[in-house]
Amino acid sequence: MIPRYARPEMTAIWEPATKFRIWYEIEAHACDAMAELGVIPKENAAAVWKARNVQFDVARIDEIEAVTKHDVIAFLTHLAEHVGSDEARFVHQGMTSSDVLDTCLNIQLTRAADILLEDMDKVLAALKRRAYEHKETVRIGRSHGIHAEPTTMGLTFARFYAEMARGKARLLAARAEIATGAISGAVGTFANIDPGVEEHVCKMMGLTPEPISTQVIPRDRHAMFFATLGVIASSMENIAIEIRHMQRTEVLEAEEFFSAGQKGSSAMPHKRNPVLTENLTGLARLVRMTVIPAMENVALWHERDISHSSVERGIAPDATVTLDFALNRLAGVIDKLVIYPENMLNNMNKFKGLVMSQRVLLALTQAGISREDAYRLVQRNAMKVWEEGRDFKQELLADAEVVAALSPAEIEEKFDLGYHTKHVDTIFARVFGEPA
Amino acid sequence: MIPRYARPEMTAIWEPATKFRIWYEIEAHACDAMAELGVIPKENAAAVWKARNVQFDVARIDEIEAVTKHDVIAFLTHLAEHVGSDEARFVHQGMTSSDVLDTCLNIQLTRAADILLEDMDKVLAALKRRAYEHKETVRIGRSHGIHAEPTTMGLTFARFYAEMARGKARLLAARAEIATGAISGAVGTFANIDPGVEEHVCKMMGLTPEPISTQVIPRDRHAMFFATLGVIASSMENIAIEIRHMQRTEVLEAEEFFSAGQKGSSAMPHKRNPVLTENLTGLARLVRMTVIPAMENVALWHERDISHSSVERGIAPDATVTLDFALNRLAGVIDKLVIYPENMLNNMNKFKGLVMSQRVLLALTQAGISREDAYRLVQRNAMKVWEEGRDFKQELLADAEVVAALSPAEIEEKFDLGYHTKHVDTIFARVFGEPA
Amino acid sequence: MIPRYARPEMTAIWEPATKFRIWYEIEAHACDAMAELGVIPKENAAAVWKARNVQFDVARIDEIEAVTKHDVIAFLTHLAEHVGSDEARFVHQGMTSSDVLDTCLNIQLTRAADILLEDMDKVLAALKRRAYEHKETVRIGRSHGIHAEPTTMGLTFARFYAEMARGKARLLAARAEIATGAISGAVGTFANIDPGVEEHVCKMMGLTPEPISTQVIPRDRHAMFFATLGVIASSMENIAIEIRHMQRTEVLEAEEFFSAGQKGSSAMPHKRNPVLTENLTGLARLVRMTVIPAMENVALWHERDISHSSVERGIAPDATVTLDFALNRLAGVIDKLVIYPENMLNNMNKFKGLVMSQRVLLALTQAGISREDAYRLVQRNAMKVWEEGRDFKQELLADAEVVAALSPAEIEEKFDLGYHTKHVDTIFARVFGEPA
Amino acid sequence: MIPRYARPEMTAIWEPATKFRIWYEIEAHACDAMAELGVIPKENAAAVWKARNVQFDVARIDEIEAVTKHDVIAFLTHLAEHVGSDEARFVHQGMTSSDVLDTCLNIQLTRAADILLEDMDKVLAALKRRAYEHKETVRIGRSHGIHAEPTTMGLTFARFYAEMARGKARLLAARAEIATGAISGAVGTFANIDPGVEEHVCKMMGLTPEPISTQVIPRDRHAMFFATLGVIASSMENIAIEIRHMQRTEVLEAEEFFSAGQKGSSAMPHKRNPVLTENLTGLARLVRMTVIPAMENVALWHERDISHSSVERGIAPDATVTLDFALNRLAGVIDKLVIYPENMLNNMNKFKGLVMSQRVLLALTQAGISREDAYRLVQRNAMKVWEEGRDFKQELLADAEVVAALSPAEIEEKFDLGYHTKHVDTIFARVFGEPA
Repeated sequence: MIPRYARPEMTAIWEPATKFRIWYEIEAHACDAMAELGVIPKENAAAVWKARNVQFDVARIDEIEAVTKHDVIAFLTHLAEHVGSDEARFVHQGMTSSDVLDTCLNIQLTRAADILLEDMDKVLAALKRRAYEHKETVRIGRSHGIHAEPTTMGLTFARFYAEMARGKARLLAARAEIATGAISGAVGTFANIDPGVEEHVCKMMGLTPEPISTQVIPRDRHAMFFATLGVIASSMENIAIEIRHMQRTEVLEAEEFFSAGQKGSSAMPHKRNPVLTENLTGLARLVRMTVIPAMENVALWHERDISHSSVERGIAPDATVTLDFALNRLAGVIDKLVIYPENMLNNMNKFKGLVMSQRVLLALTQAGISREDAYRLVQRNAMKVWEEGRDFKQELLADAEVVAALSPAEIEEKFDLGYHTKHVDTIFARVFGEPA
Repeated sequence: MIPRYARPEMTAIWEPATKFRIWYEIEAHACDAMAELGVIPKENAAAVWKARNVQFDVARIDEIEAVTKHDVIAFLTHLAEHVGSDEARFVHQGMTSSDVLDTCLNIQLTRAADILLEDMDKVLAALKRRAYEHKETVRIGRSHGIHAEPTTMGLTFARFYAEMARGKARLLAARAEIATGAISGAVGTFANIDPGVEEHVCKMMGLTPEPISTQVIPRDRHAMFFATLGVIASSMENIAIEIRHMQRTEVLEAEEFFSAGQKGSSAMPHKRNPVLTENLTGLARLVRMTVIPAMENVALWHERDISHSSVERGIAPDATVTLDFALNRLAGVIDKLVIYPENMLNNMNKFKGLVMSQRVLLALTQAGISREDAYRLVQRNAMKVWEEGRDFKQELLADAEVVAALSPAEIEEKFDLGYHTKHVDTIFARVFGEPA
Repeated sequence: MIPRYARPEMTAIWEPATKFRIWYEIEAHACDAMAELGVIPKENAAAVWKARNVQFDVARIDEIEAVTKHDVIAFLTHLAEHVGSDEARFVHQGMTSSDVLDTCLNIQLTRAADILLEDMDKVLAALKRRAYEHKETVRIGRSHGIHAEPTTMGLTFARFYAEMARGKARLLAARAEIATGAISGAVGTFANIDPGVEEHVCKMMGLTPEPISTQVIPRDRHAMFFATLGVIASSMENIAIEIRHMQRTEVLEAEEFFSAGQKGSSAMPHKRNPVLTENLTGLARLVRMTVIPAMENVALWHERDISHSSVERGIAPDATVTLDFALNRLAGVIDKLVIYPENMLNNMNKFKGLVMSQRVLLALTQAGISREDAYRLVQRNAMKVWEEGRDFKQELLADAEVVAALSPAEIEEKFDLGYHTKHVDTIFARVFGEPA
Repeated sequence: MIPRYARPEMTAIWEPATKFRIWYEIEAHACDAMAELGVIPKENAAAVWKARNVQFDVARIDEIEAVTKHDVIAFLTHLAEHVGSDEARFVHQGMTSSDVLDTCLNIQLTRAADILLEDMDKVLAALKRRAYEHKETVRIGRSHGIHAEPTTMGLTFARFYAEMARGKARLLAARAEIATGAISGAVGTFANIDPGVEEHVCKMMGLTPEPISTQVIPRDRHAMFFATLGVIASSMENIAIEIRHMQRTEVLEAEEFFSAGQKGSSAMPHKRNPVLTENLTGLARLVRMTVIPAMENVALWHERDISHSSVERGIAPDATVTLDFALNRLAGVIDKLVIYPENMLNNMNKFKGLVMSQRVLLALTQAGISREDAYRLVQRNAMKVWEEGRDFKQELLADAEVVAALSPAEIEEKFDLGYHTKHVDTIFARVFGEPA
């Protein structure tokens, strides 16, 4: 977790105070369930809730842990300082530390997912707004970085919208994957604790009981979660790369918003760097790098080994905090992106009409000219554009052989941009679910 | 793709002949749709189906490609050799090569997913059968590789079943992700082809139309697909590692099936190596390594660059063929795994009853002994077991201070394995969905 | 290994015939050493060399393996068919299969490294030639994709040369890492074979004896080897990305060579796609993906488990064959890259002299103008260029306040490109080791 | 960077105060060089050193950066507050921010490498000591987790020593890779600054001048650095896995040191978990995950984009801090590892002499018995051991057919452990470079 790439909403989830609060709630609900089952006295369960409004003292817990060398015991000792030793004596009964730790981790990941889902909504809203704004803003479509055929800026935004909407659906699924809890004891047999406790705790904490756990909740769930973040980060990179390309000096179809106060802008007005999207490109790598270790964490020895733990102490905050920051940054970038429709047209016309050569070729063959001849006709006019900078349409109109096959109006029509945008509404309806 | 780790069912999907067949079907259905829309003559569309039963000549197509340097054109040229140049002249009209290539790739991946789903069913069936068979076969549960509390072999199988069932659900979702097709032209605008063609082709080929494509189908879908295979491979590794541990000379709770004829078995009967599960461990790495490149493939330049293509030529067959082989091998390993319940009991009793020390400790405190005293009592008897190899239960029964707190029957009860297995039915009901 | 991205020189290394030949040589040399040590009769050792010119029959060995289920035994059986059962009876004595397999693998990797070193020499030669050719070809340097200050195309090539030269040095080190052999028996103790045999075999096969092995040669060596290939592939990607950028329609400072016959070139002269460097970008991912599994292979259980084996069957040919193909392609791309110096100048002048604004600012402050005033002066002229397309130098020359501080000659001098190229020779001397 | 897995020696390198100190030194040395070259007045260069003993105020710099939005400018502004605006006015002249940032990063990485080299020395020292201590401690060698032939614990340690010594050599090479500095201006042409400045700064800071840089130092160097850390981490995992296996309840050949005070040790004496080596297994994954992003950082756009920066803000501290902590932990684990030679013997004898079956087989054939008969003889005695728990040697001695071929003394000799340890001295001499 890099402080400069972190938002407090997300880092709060990973602070010790939050963790202890969750542990407390798990233990208190577990006591309730045990009391309900008649395993412990109801008054002891009730007593635990005396600490309901306590802000646990992290430093004090650390102090105890320095002695006990065990984090959960340190917490329970501190809890007893609030609840009373005697009243607290049934807390955690029949449970194993992992019951608390793993259920807590999944709660944290679930909350992180909720924030990420909000982030994605911001990104989606920005993309949708800009898509409609530039639905008809024509620009050249490129394959291999080379001009191909016209498209619109709105279609670019709509495409990213569809991709991010898929990302959101995946994140919802990934959230469901890790929204489970387990209170099943040392090796998951419920030998020392009734399954009813797990059910109650999960219900109160917004989780589903893990159908079968060992000492730990199975890590394929977490692997899937991090893999999903990796895919979303990759989609984010996809958008970032597009913007970086658009902002290149030679292309200049868009620029990241550059506030008036930002240093250096006016003496070197050409030097506005797409630093935010470059940053997002790097952040995507940071999120993605957590995927493989999360997968390596799946194969634990027998009922558990603890190799996964240090990994998760790193990647759980790192991946969620970084992606949260990045998605927020992305939403802002999209929202404020400065778009230059005129430059888009200029770029498209860089080789005066040459991008239409394919359409002309087709029209000539459809007009009955042989493929070879059509090709020759297009070629000789195209080369004048390429080599001498002439205008393609004018050359065609001046080429007797071409005009013999196609009327000026027909030639003119081949350069009509409406030909390329005629299905934009259809596509928008598919993406945004509204009538074409 | 490593021939020795490949099954013909899956490699067939990736053979040139299969690819050409799919291309053919895409082109033929596209012609039908264009004819229906009145864009091309119906007789030309019908003519294409003359090649319905043709086995395309891969060598001939390669020969043409050597000249044209373009695979789709080579195929179309060859197709025309079967259909007739004139009849075939509308084939591929308004389409771009990627329309065929990308739709084909997704069909191949979808078919691969179908085989993998069958594979997972085999694994699931084997796991379920073995789970019920060993539902009550007690073995020691281990955390950190160290004895913890008893569990059953059936629970181990049931746990893997639940994990693989999650894997199957994920694979179904991943299959849906890549079951899309696109016939949208050079930059995805449908400028040269009606969206109705895409709809028809997709319908006939079992796909959903890609809501918005560029020249290509967006690669976040493929990233998610390979990420899912990576998670399943990791779950497979989880099972493989368990079996490898069980087969260790010192543990010997299970062995991969070793046919009578296998060399060397009887002169060195201890030397039966878990080579299949070791192999699966390695294969898991091979599948997993495709995840990051698939994610790196997502960010393409503008409407497409072709950097993803070489990656997919590698990872698409590699990941699916390897995982298919591995899951089949896994199903066989589970199915025939030789299990030694007696060794399980012997292992559990390695430190004569010491694994029950925790239960005894709890019982003593519940009998009113202070925590400190209870600990002292357990400790002094435990050390006799640890250091002198005595039997824990016998020592407790002979310890006057212990017996003063717990009756012999109560002590006896602490060593009852039924205590640990009492919720096995509950857990099985959760996993296999049957009544407890 | 993807056939279309493979060269026969490299694939030959990974063919069964090559493997068997290496096995043969290892066994024959081992017999010589054993005979020399008096462990086996000299005539038996000599007899093995009778097969010196035999082309082993791969199909026959496969046939035997189908029965014995053991590759090395199958080979030895076949060898005996050539040498005679009785003469061959001491072959492989005291050795373990891994002695042959691991030593063979390292020989294959070493040979692969030799080919890759030749490939890198080709790349280096091409880069050097083009560097000198374009030493003074001025182009704009870009940070963030935005124009910064002038540089030369020669410096770009020289930079890639330096990077690839580092890559070559790394590959030499990586080659040394895996140029070891081991003939040390079942667990590496030489219990059944004298260390002298290992020494002789290694000497004859061009290897260093592994100082301490188990059943296998330690896999940190291989991890380092594949990691090195991954770094080289990344450097290759660095060059590929540069070329892809240069070929963008809007930039067009260079193009991959496009042979006259390549379809479509003249009717759509703008549509020359940088497909080779896009392909290299993808191939870099394929090489890089082998790094993590190679690292996961390092931690084997005790004296060996076989999990690494399936991984290496995949990645050893894949990474070397792919990188070999890619480096050769890269050398060709660089060699034949078509460079457009005029477009470089046009691009640099896109914002008529604005890239020099920083130099002018500095000159004004050095002429005694306050930083604020200098900034104001530059800014007001820069904005005329940016917004109205004026020429920066002309504006400065027409600005009375500017001219009061700087003479026309001084202003003129700020636009002198020689200022930026004055240290090119110094840098070339650093890179190519020749006098400045 | 996870605080719990961090040592202050290493984290100090990555603190802002350290960074600013390095920036200061770079700037001050650059001024000296510029003064020497006559580019700036000597008194201004000298004035910068007035701040020689200043502890820069990080909060104040942050405050300035909040306004200027530029870290280097903020630092320079703060520096001027100490040195005096007028005296400081030539600081950074002709330099670009990256000159400072990149040179600083490499200094930090170089210092980190120095600490890691010390760490490796600790690990090496511990391994060597334990190797000699247990040079003759016999244990069973295992392949596939299955008993193979005897080896010694000293050989295991010696093997890890050799692996770590290779790691150290690699780290030295990786340190040399990133011990470069660059003061070459906006695009690396030295247009605004003499190469002599770079030379001087590098010399004073212990670096080599980067032969050719752009705005940045090329990132293939950093990729190689992180790849090397990844390989070392994998070797660390190799050792950790060995110890985890040795500590398994059923194996119990060694245990991580467990201090008297550690909770729970005596009531559950069997429950000593190898938590440190499990932790190291996880930490290895965390180090390794930085390798791919470091490789993805190599391909920057043209003379630089800033996508690498956020990645390095994460991985540079993360990888070095984590590996430093882990290597220290590893040295401690090895140093204090509790080894149980008696258990090693017991394990070896688990199948009473059966591990010697291979030697007996060989001896019988060498005594003139046919391979088939020898196999039959070994097999019938081996099966009695395997199935009835008899002692292999005793059975052989009682088998008339065996005794007819081998004398009791010869049979006895096959069970002599000295046979397996006879080359230990030779191997130690190879590893530790001392006379055999």
